[in-house]
Amino acid sequence: MKKNYLITPGPTPVPPEVSAKEGLPILHHRTSEFGVIFSQVIEDLKYVFQTKHDVLMTAGSGTGALESAVANLLSPGDKALVVSTGVFGDRYKKICDAYGINALYIREPEGEIAVPAKIEEALKKNPDIKVVFVTHTETSTGVVNPIEAIGKIVVKTPAVLAVDSVSGLGGQDLQTDNWHCDVVCSGSQKGLMTAPGLAIVSVAPKAWPLVEASKSPRFYFDWRKMKKSIADKETPFTPPVTIVVAQAEALRLIKQEGLQNVFARHTWLAQATRAGVQAMGLKLFAKVPCDVLTSITVPEGLNGKAIVKRLREEYGVSIAGGQVDLEGKIVRLAHMGYMERFDVIIALSALEMMLYELGHKVELGKGVGAAEKIFLDKSKAPAAAAKAPQPAGVH
Amino acid sequence: MKKNYLITPGPTPVPPEVSAKEGLPILHHRTSEFGVIFSQVIEDLKYVFQTKHDVLMTAGSGTGALESAVANLLSPGDKALVVSTGVFGDRYKKICDAYGINALYIREPEGEIAVPAKIEEALKKNPDIKVVFVTHTETSTGVVNPIEAIGKIVVKTPAVLAVDSVSGLGGQDLQTDNWHCDVVCSGSQKGLMTAPGLAIVSVAPKAWPLVEASKSPRFYFDWRKMKKSIADKETPFTPPVTIVVAQAEALRLIKQEGLQNVFARHTWLAQATRAGVQAMGLKLFAKVPCDVLTSITVPEGLNGKAIVKRLREEYGVSIAGGQVDLEGKIVRLAHMGYMERFDVIIALSALEMMLYELGHKVELGKGVGAAEKIFLDKSKAPAAAAKAPQPAGVH
Repeated sequence: MKKNYLITPGPTPVPPEVSAKEGLPILHHRTSEFGVIFSQVIEDLKYVFQTKHDVLMTAGSGTGALESAVANLLSPGDKALVVSTGVFGDRYKKICDAYGINALYIREPEGEIAVPAKIEEALKKNPDIKVVFVTHTETSTGVVNPIEAIGKIVVKTPAVLAVDSVSGLGGQDLQTDNWHCDVVCSGSQKGLMTAPGLAIVSVAPKAWPLVEASKSPRFYFDWRKMKKSIADKETPFTPPVTIVVAQAEALRLIKQEGLQNVFARHTWLAQATRAGVQAMGLKLFAKVPCDVLTSITVPEGLNGKAIVKRLREEYGVSIAGGQVDLEGKIVRLAHMGYMERFDVIIALSALEMMLYELGHKVELGKGVGAAEKIFLDKSKAPAAAAKAPQPAGVH
Repeated sequence: MKKNYLITPGPTPVPPEVSAKEGLPILHHRTSEFGVIFSQVIEDLKYVFQTKHDVLMTAGSGTGALESAVANLLSPGDKALVVSTGVFGDRYKKICDAYGINALYIREPEGEIAVPAKIEEALKKNPDIKVVFVTHTETSTGVVNPIEAIGKIVVKTPAVLAVDSVSGLGGQDLQTDNWHCDVVCSGSQKGLMTAPGLAIVSVAPKAWPLVEASKSPRFYFDWRKMKKSIADKETPFTPPVTIVVAQAEALRLIKQEGLQNVFARHTWLAQATRAGVQAMGLKLFAKVPCDVLTSITVPEGLNGKAIVKRLREEYGVSIAGGQVDLEGKIVRLAHMGYMERFDVIIALSALEMMLYELGHKVELGKGVGAAEKIFLDKSKAPAAAAKAPQPAGVH
């Protein structure tokens, strides 16, 4: 008998109520019955995105959402600025390259965050930059970028701010409208607690003139088509109906918990994870760690890839390793979406046991104990932490 | 209490065994557990596509698959030939236009089929045509195009034949390799009996040099990335894991039935539907009707849109109306995928009753009776019809 535990940054576990909805009979997408669900999903996504503007969707992955931003906002030869702090920031650069965009590229070292002053300088030197691409929570390193500060800079320029919040949305606060995020890209499979398959974007008024002007080829990912269909409570092309129906249920759960409580829960889980990891004698990798994922430097003499592999095979616990340059050097524990205190306990316990097995000096129960201490501290509990009112102007 | 019946050409009903798989807990896509399922799906898709060559997939709809064909096969300015017999053929033209392709366009009137001689002539006059796009079963009109004959023409030229079989695959025979279909585009939600969300393409060796040469922008839909990932039993970007797992089950059912039996069942259902429709005094719309859908000319004085709307609202029976120029003029009954004789009986009975209610002269039970007669004729039953052996060289 093997039980599997998903501690990975996407796909993440899905609540059974949501999974069960996916198993219901197929609804036709051009019926009023589906239209009601679809419209509710769009409205509820606006609540999670914290936006009053357009929210669009299509069948696709998060990368599909990123590509749709490049194709809809820019024409070949246009100047853009890609601010990258890891693999997912780099992906924006690669997509820009594929589309013949003249993409300036600011790359911070792994584990560090974007520097607003550098963005300000680049925009000053290049007033013809049309779009600034930046990642919200960079899952490859575990940092959270200062989107609010970046928004304050970009809003003063003609440039559009496009944020990749595939892994952040619904876990780490992102005030789309208040922070002047003109475009936010996301997907169903992380904070939105649903199976992968839905690419989702929000688009603010400042972005639409670029969409109208873009000469990049697009048909399936054309936001103009998606926006037009929304009025008819449908999508231009067959949507993944079962995932939309499941997404509706997941959004109901998020609303029921309340967005501020959702964020506070993620903060709580992140604090406990970090405390546990440090109590084990391990080092946090991210300089400014996000709340949806904890990245950990693999102690010298150990191989991160082996840790990930053995945890999966021997314990049924899936955690993530490092990507590209960080392969083998870090491991990553997710706490995003449908996660609760005992998911953190499982992750820490599995890691403790594996380190012990690999001969690394670790006191069994030390990491778990440190996390438990956080969980028992009533002042840190989500209900206490989520004192902040809902952002103004967002329902 | 309302029971819903999907008689529409996609999404189509999904077997409960398949739906149930979609509701299982999420598998991570970079695990050996998922890799085994993914590889099996690719292998089983090759069986359904009747190909030995590459089968690739990504999260997306059928239109995503069509767009991927244009983006991967052609560069801006390249010459292509779009052979259209309806809305879905026209879609290929629109995508070509969006990508700046010089697309010659042969358009047959609604209800008629593609004419191989015209394609031969166009290829002779334009030896620089790189790709011929054609639709297998054109769902907007209900015809099936002569792909085998077209393949025999295109194979003699340097051009690549790209076939849209989104609605045909797994319902209407398409011998990808034997008929020289270099690229076939499809999706999970029709003959493949799974929820929408998977865009699938097959790619033969003749097509790969074009893929390498294409200068069209592509990242998410890049076939080179997809092909590379297949070797690692994964996809370049997060696949819709629940739909892949469900697709595996649906493919198991298709293999269990046997592809020739699947085709014979569709022929059987099509014959019964056509007999029923004609017994009601209605006219078939398609000159060469396909086996996955029956299109019916709406009798004068009646409005097809009203028939579709009332059947849905009052009977819970979803059928399809006409699109674009055919709006209100035809109705369409699907018999594709997870369909059996009583789905035909329901469709015909609902239509009979609705025509009666609308004051159209129809003898109740006449259409159903004619279908029953086909179903009782043992010589027409799938087991008897599926005498043809599996095509040579395909497992």
